[in-house]
Amino acid sequence: MPTFRMTLAYDGGRYCGWQSQPNGRSIQQQIETALFQVTRCQVRVIGSGRTDAGVHALGQVAGFQVQTRLPADVLARALNAFLPDDIRVLQLDRVSDRFHAIRDAKRKRYRYDIQTGPVQNVFVRKRCWYVRWPLSVEAMQSAADHLVGKHDFACFQAAGSPRKSTVRTIFDFPVQLVESGYRMQEAERFIRIEVEADGFLYNMVRNLVGQLVDVGRGVETPERIGALLGSRDRRLAGPTAPAQGLFLVSVQYPTSGDTHQSSQ
Amino acid sequence: MPTFRMTLAYDGGRYCGWQSQPNGRSIQQQIETALFQVTRCQVRVIGSGRTDAGVHALGQVAGFQVQTRLPADVLARALNAFLPDDIRVLQLDRVSDRFHAIRDAKRKRYRYDIQTGPVQNVFVRKRCWYVRWPLSVEAMQSAADHLVGKHDFACFQAAGSPRKSTVRTIFDFPVQLVESGYRMQEAERFIRIEVEADGFLYNMVRNLVGQLVDVGRGVETPERIGALLGSRDRRLAGPTAPAQGLFLVSVQYPTSGDTHQSSQ
Repeated sequence: MPTFRMTLAYDGGRYCGWQSQPNGRSIQQQIETALFQVTRCQVRVIGSGRTDAGVHALGQVAGFQVQTRLPADVLARALNAFLPDDIRVLQLDRVSDRFHAIRDAKRKRYRYDIQTGPVQNVFVRKRCWYVRWPLSVEAMQSAADHLVGKHDFACFQAAGSPRKSTVRTIFDFPVQLVESGYRMQEAERFIRIEVEADGFLYNMVRNLVGQLVDVGRGVETPERIGALLGSRDRRLAGPTAPAQGLFLVSVQYPTSGDTHQSSQ
Repeated sequence: MPTFRMTLAYDGGRYCGWQSQPNGRSIQQQIETALFQVTRCQVRVIGSGRTDAGVHALGQVAGFQVQTRLPADVLARALNAFLPDDIRVLQLDRVSDRFHAIRDAKRKRYRYDIQTGPVQNVFVRKRCWYVRWPLSVEAMQSAADHLVGKHDFACFQAAGSPRKSTVRTIFDFPVQLVESGYRMQEAERFIRIEVEADGFLYNMVRNLVGQLVDVGRGVETPERIGALLGSRDRRLAGPTAPAQGLFLVSVQYPTSGDTHQSSQ
């Protein structure tokens, strides 16, 4: 049966997250429904990983197998015709039957957007964490720099979510002031954090961002990160940043001999 | 009674427009309700002009008079505490009793955002006109350049909305490719049109933008604008661009001896 790899973007605001759940609309369910409408097959779609309720994606990847004669580009356009307008198929490729969206993922990149200033921006309010107090981007970058490399991130894992290993490698962790196309006031600042790693523990990005914000507002120092990592204790790290500022940017797979590539 | 000038931003998506109407939630009504909650006075708020259903504002200006002892900055914060999170007071100033938000407005600046590409961007879908076909920014700028200056804009006025004079002066009309913070695909383009004039006829910006898009996709030439203006016939000009891409950016007033300025 033909195997497909799909790249997706979605606005997570209206969904209970990637994964289908008894109560709540999930991204996965919307895609499986659209696939059924196009192909008349019950298809199981496997995402590279779950995204939580309210989390967005600029480049989530999912795999599925379906018996269809449709070329990938036609299938992609047909899916977009059936999907709600907050979920879009960006690319669909016919790939090797050995492709597995979770197992084969080598790296993921997330981003997290923060807005500061005296007033919450009305246009980005559903895509940012609004933080009233000023934040030092320099201090936040310094803290992020301490976290780059191979570390035990147990203290940044949601409590009660045991994994075999809590060691991960962060390759890149920039913290930058960016311009928003929706600036309302001089005093507004938009801070964009990106983080790329070989994998992430549950809630790890949101916990890292909470820690960086504690550093940025001056209630924590960049230098204490080492001690925090050593503690392996979630209770000692900062708060969990809210879901709506988080975007799954991209998922990297080893280059393989994919065929039938089509950009949509 | 103290007179105030307020600068406001709002996401117009959930509203029937600026002006209160029998059926539908208006921006004006939300502000008057918040003013009542804070001051216990029924206050009439006068906007610099109406914005239609779905139109946004980065800097709408409104005036009102209210009997209050609250300093302007405290009043502004109190209003933001009562307003829904898609409407924010950015600034509130105590001004001369002679201030009138409509009569005294000297210039207004609007902007209009367009997204092109094979797939509609999920993150800006409520703040852009999505146009599938490619647009030539150069041709659009050339058409806009023909419109700068003092002209009779009758052909860009919504049919059935007579005004004493349909002559207006456009001071600035840039058309630019911009970066969006929410790019999903290489093939996406974000085009931002801004236009500043001493006044606008009803639907004039959206009609101008419709004309520029016709030029940008090549079904109309920049050079025919002169003939269009001369015709004074709405039926000869391009389509009306949808409301959701339109933002009222700012309203300019003559500098005056305002007191009690406060930034919020």
